Amino acid sequence: MRDFSNDHHWLSLNTATVRKSEGLEQPLTLILDACARHGIHAISPWRDQVHAVGLAKIAAQVKALDLQLSGYCRGGFYPAPDAKGLQDALDDTRRAIDEAKILNAPCLVLVVGALPGALQGKAAHKDIALSRAQVFDGVAASLEYASSVGMPLAIEPLHPMQAAERACINTLEHALDICEELDPEYSKKLGVAIDVYHTWWDPKLHGQIKRAGKRIQAFHVCDWLTPTTDLLNDRGMMGDGVIEIPKIRAAVEAQGFSGFSEVEIFSSSNWWNRPMDEVLTTCIERHKTAV
Amino acid sequence: MRDFSNDHHWLSLNTATVRKSEGLEQPLTLILDACARHGIHAISPWRDQVHAVGLAKIAAQVKALDLQLSGYCRGGFYPAPDAKGLQDALDDTRRAIDEAKILNAPCLVLVVGALPGALQGKAAHKDIALSRAQVFDGVAASLEYASSVGMPLAIEPLHPMQAAERACINTLEHALDICEELDPEYSKKLGVAIDVYHTWWDPKLHGQIKRAGKRIQAFHVCDWLTPTTDLLNDRGMMGDGVIEIPKIRAAVEAQGFSGFSEVEIFSSSNWWNRPMDEVLTTCIERHKTAV
Repeated sequence: MRDFSNDHHWLSLNTATVRKSEGLEQPLTLILDACARHGIHAISPWRDQVHAVGLAKIAAQVKALDLQLSGYCRGGFYPAPDAKGLQDALDDTRRAIDEAKILNAPCLVLVVGALPGALQGKAAHKDIALSRAQVFDGVAASLEYASSVGMPLAIEPLHPMQAAERACINTLEHALDICEELDPEYSKKLGVAIDVYHTWWDPKLHGQIKRAGKRIQAFHVCDWLTPTTDLLNDRGMMGDGVIEIPKIRAAVEAQGFSGFSEVEIFSSSNWWNRPMDEVLTTCIERHKTAV
Repeated sequence: MRDFSNDHHWLSLNTATVRKSEGLEQPLTLILDACARHGIHAISPWRDQVHAVGLAKIAAQVKALDLQLSGYCRGGFYPAPDAKGLQDALDDTRRAIDEAKILNAPCLVLVVGALPGALQGKAAHKDIALSRAQVFDGVAASLEYASSVGMPLAIEPLHPMQAAERACINTLEHALDICEELDPEYSKKLGVAIDVYHTWWDPKLHGQIKRAGKRIQAFHVCDWLTPTTDLLNDRGMMGDGVIEIPKIRAAVEAQGFSGFSEVEIFSSSNWWNRPMDEVLTTCIERHKTAV
């Protein structure tokens, strides 16, 4: 297991972590400058943040600041109530793959989607098995294009509390079932993103990390607070919650993973209200002591 | 699959559903009278509600009103930071078993506990594997006493979002692993309570229901709302959310389950604010149309 206590070389910032610093939406350009200022040299940006500035401009800034990507967020959201919606999701994920290539991301993270309409408060149906079948077909279609252009895809299982609205792949086991069926030899680079927040509770986690092996393409950290007051935006800073982050990182690294620990904290009532520099300083400190 | 559309014979009321009707804590005596008034003849009461009135008085009222129990809530909460805490949990669950006998419950529901102290906001440790080992030992100890007095125990897997605070058994698969190890022949009557709210998201649910077979001792219903605004107290009325309740009930009944559908709704911002009669009327209506 790598020693993180002396520096933050392996810290990556998922840019959602400071997207609303001090309550205001922060332009990605400012976030990247702040990373450079703090000696953070890896990021994982979100598409909407990139689009708000412009892909070419961000690509140039990433290059100028000598930043690496630890992933690109995100493709997926495959399930839809009709054929047009299914096709739109494939098209959009294809564009995400192209953008990930331009930004030189090591993988495109897939948040696969769930019951169509549920995120907007009105599910078109309740048939989660149908959504899962659509996800399977969607990943299969995206994989053909992604592998043709050499962009690995990382299925991110989300916490079961997101099963209705954001992802109906909710365990690492389920994600790996899909990986093994669609890409048994890992020749197309269909893998997984393991976020401790989504997976820490799973009694099968450590066994499935072993099973994942070389398919681990990304490792995300934050913490589970007690109490957690919101299902989406109350993630904790590493060390403030109950997740055994170093134990999970050790398991992931035992499988050969040697990439970044990507900090991804959605926190509408705490960290998003603080100054960006304070958040980044804290991420760096906790990366050394709690990851 | 039984036809529920004509009457509410198989409706049981988990008494937490109306414990705070119109925002005020309701004495269990009033709740039982309301059940009788609405032709509901099964309940699953909570221990604190029973204790607030007195066990003997409630036992007499249950008998006088010719009510049945569909379960008794609850034993468990085994993990503790020290030997005294572990013993206290065993002693308390033993008392719960005795009370369940007096009330003639078909099973004592076990909410097994998780990281000690987390429910109070400060976990004594983060070692969920340790908590799971303590749960295993605790269930084993309780089972010896329970089987000696003839009280079935029903492990209730709780939703993974409760893994830190209330139960570190979060899938039906995990619950059944424990059942099969401690009581392979089901001779001691160690089984499970299946709550659609806790389990609906699980891609392995239907396979595990088949595996559970005769171990299904209780079936709980409510619904998953989109959005869900609270991790504990924002459950929906059946039909108001995204759970395929009839499909899950059909699977449970295909295994021979012929007991009650127990309505258990924690709802601090909706149903707990309404008059008890309105809540019960709605439960009855939805039992016929959405369960």
